[in-house]
Amino acid sequence: MCQPVRVADSVSAPPICVLGLGLIGGSLLRAAVAAGREGWGWNRSAPTVDAALADGFDAGTDLAAVLRRAAAARALIVVAVPMPAVDATLAAIAEHAPDSPVTDVVSVKVEVAAAVARHGLQDRFVGGHPMAGTSESGWVAGDADLFRDAVWVVSADDGVDPAIWAQVARLALDCGSVVVPAESAEHDAAVARISHLPHVLAEALALSGAAGGDLALGLAAGSFRDGTRVASTAPQLVRAMCEGNRAALLTSLDETLEVLNRARTELAGQGTLIELVESGHDARLRYEQRERWTITDIPPGSENWLERMRDAGRRGGVLRP
Amino acid sequence: MCQPVRVADSVSAPPICVLGLGLIGGSLLRAAVAAGREGWGWNRSAPTVDAALADGFDAGTDLAAVLRRAAAARALIVVAVPMPAVDATLAAIAEHAPDSPVTDVVSVKVEVAAAVARHGLQDRFVGGHPMAGTSESGWVAGDADLFRDAVWVVSADDGVDPAIWAQVARLALDCGSVVVPAESAEHDAAVARISHLPHVLAEALALSGAAGGDLALGLAAGSFRDGTRVASTAPQLVRAMCEGNRAALLTSLDETLEVLNRARTELAGQGTLIELVESGHDARLRYEQRERWTITDIPPGSENWLERMRDAGRRGGVLRP
Repeated sequence: MCQPVRVADSVSAPPICVLGLGLIGGSLLRAAVAAGREGWGWNRSAPTVDAALADGFDAGTDLAAVLRRAAAARALIVVAVPMPAVDATLAAIAEHAPDSPVTDVVSVKVEVAAAVARHGLQDRFVGGHPMAGTSESGWVAGDADLFRDAVWVVSADDGVDPAIWAQVARLALDCGSVVVPAESAEHDAAVARISHLPHVLAEALALSGAAGGDLALGLAAGSFRDGTRVASTAPQLVRAMCEGNRAALLTSLDETLEVLNRARTELAGQGTLIELVESGHDARLRYEQRERWTITDIPPGSENWLERMRDAGRRGGVLRP
Repeated sequence: MCQPVRVADSVSAPPICVLGLGLIGGSLLRAAVAAGREGWGWNRSAPTVDAALADGFDAGTDLAAVLRRAAAARALIVVAVPMPAVDATLAAIAEHAPDSPVTDVVSVKVEVAAAVARHGLQDRFVGGHPMAGTSESGWVAGDADLFRDAVWVVSADDGVDPAIWAQVARLALDCGSVVVPAESAEHDAAVARISHLPHVLAEALALSGAAGGDLALGLAAGSFRDGTRVASTAPQLVRAMCEGNRAALLTSLDETLEVLNRARTELAGQGTLIELVESGHDARLRYEQRERWTITDIPPGSENWLERMRDAGRRGGVLRP
C-alpha cells in the first residue's frame, strides 16, 4: 500500500521571487512571507517598490539584479505581471535566470504557456492561477489572506517537471489555497465558462436595462443588481481577461447563443420556456451541491501522475495542505 | 401657485380585501393592517386561512362571502393570486362585487388588464405591481415590512378613474413603498429588461458552467455565483413570470441576442470586446447613479394628469408619502 503523499510535507520550499507587486503579486509576497517563506519582489514602478519597502518587504526596481539573486538562491520565480508585460518579463528571465523554476499567476494559461515556449523556458515552467481577486488593484490593495480558502489551479501539462510542479503546488498551499490540477487548455475553457462569460452577460444585461431608461433602471431590484454586478469592473480589466482567452470564450459564447436562440424559439412558438428554465435550474443546483474531495494518492512523478491528476481535477479533486 | 398634493394625505383609505394570501398577498394584508387600515383576506386553501387566523388576521375560504363583504364595505379589492388564477378570480368579482374598486399585485400588467376588460371591470380597475419578493412563498413567509422602501408601480393607463388610482397609490404608500406611475405596456417592457431577462441569462450562464463539469463548477467564484443566483428560483415561478410577459421578453431577448452577436463578431474578427465592455460599463454606472425624485404637483384627475404622471415615471419620478 502506498502512503498518501501530502505535497506540503514532502517538498522543498525555496525562496520566492515575485515579479510584479500589484494586487496578486503583492498579496502573494505577503502571504508567502507570512507562511515563513523567504521572498522578495520586483516592480518597475519605484513608488510601488517604496511602498513595499515601507511595509517591511524586500523589493527592488532592478529586474536583472532581482533575477540574478533568484538564480543564485535557486528561488522559485513567480510571474505576476499583466498579460501584455509577460513576454518582456520572460525574456529577462531567459537572460538572467534561465535555470530557475518559474510559475505565473496570470488568468489565462495557454497564452502564457505559448510565450514560455517561445523563450525556451518550458522545462522549468509550471503555470498557475489563483482564483482570487477584488475590484481593487495595486500593492496597497494587497492582503496576505487574499488566497485563503481560494482555489489555485496548477497546470498539469505534458512534460512538466514533477519537482517544480510540487514546488508550485506547495506555494499555493502555503498561501492558504487548495490546489486544482488541470491542463492549461482545460483551465482556459473552464474559466471562460465561469469567469469570462459572466462578464459578457453582465455587460449585455446592463445594456438592456439602460435601454429601458430611468423607468426600467428605477424598477430594477436584486436580479438586475446581482446580474450586472461585475459590469462595474474596470473595462480594461474585463477586456484583458476576455480578449486574452478569446478562443475559449468564443466557444462558450457560441454555446450560450445557441441556448438562448433555442429558448427564444420555444418562447415565440409555444409560449413556454420549459427547456431553458428546467435545465438552468438543475445546473444551478449542481453548482450549489458541488463538493470538493481531497487528492491524496498521486505523488508528482509517479506512474501516469499527470493523467491521474488531470482526471482527479476534472472530477472535483483538490490538493490540500 | 398650486400646492403640492400628497396622495396619502388627501385620499380616502377604505378597507382592503386581499384575494390570495401567499407571500405577496399575505405581506400586503399584514402591512396594511400594521398601517392602521381595516382589512381581510381570502384564500382557497383552508390551512392557509387557518394560519392567517392563528396569526390574528381576518380571513376566510368562502370567496363569494368575502366579496359580498367587500362590496358592502366599499373595500378596495386586491387581486393577489397567481396569473393562472386571475381569470376565475375576476369572474367572481364581476359576480359578487361588480362596483368595487379593484387593483392587483401580479407581476405583468398588460395581460391582467386584458383579463379585467374581458370581465367588464376596467372602469373600476387600476393595476399595481410591488417590486418586492423573496425566494420563499406562502402565508408563513409573509412580512409586514416586505414592501418597505420598495418600488410599487401603479398603472397609469388611459381611462383609469383618478379616485381609484389615488386609492391604490395610497395603499402602496401605506405599505411603505414609493409609487412609480407607468402605463401597463411600459411597465411590462421595463420588467422584461430588469427582471425577466436577468432570469433568462442566469439560467443560460448556469448551463454554461455545468457544461464545464466539476472542474469548471469547482473554479467558479463570485461572478458566476452572483450571475446565476436567480437560477435557483423555483422553475414554475420563473416560467410564470417570463411566459406571462412573453411579447416584452421576446423584444428584450432579441435586443440582447443582437448585442451578443455583435460582440461575438468583434471578438472573432478583431480579437477585442471594446463596444460591449465600454458600453456595458457605462450602463452599469448609469444604474448605480440613478436617482429618484419626488413627484409633488400632479393631482390625480387634474388636466393631462395621466400623461404627466407617465412622463414623470419615465424620468425617474416617484410619489412618496
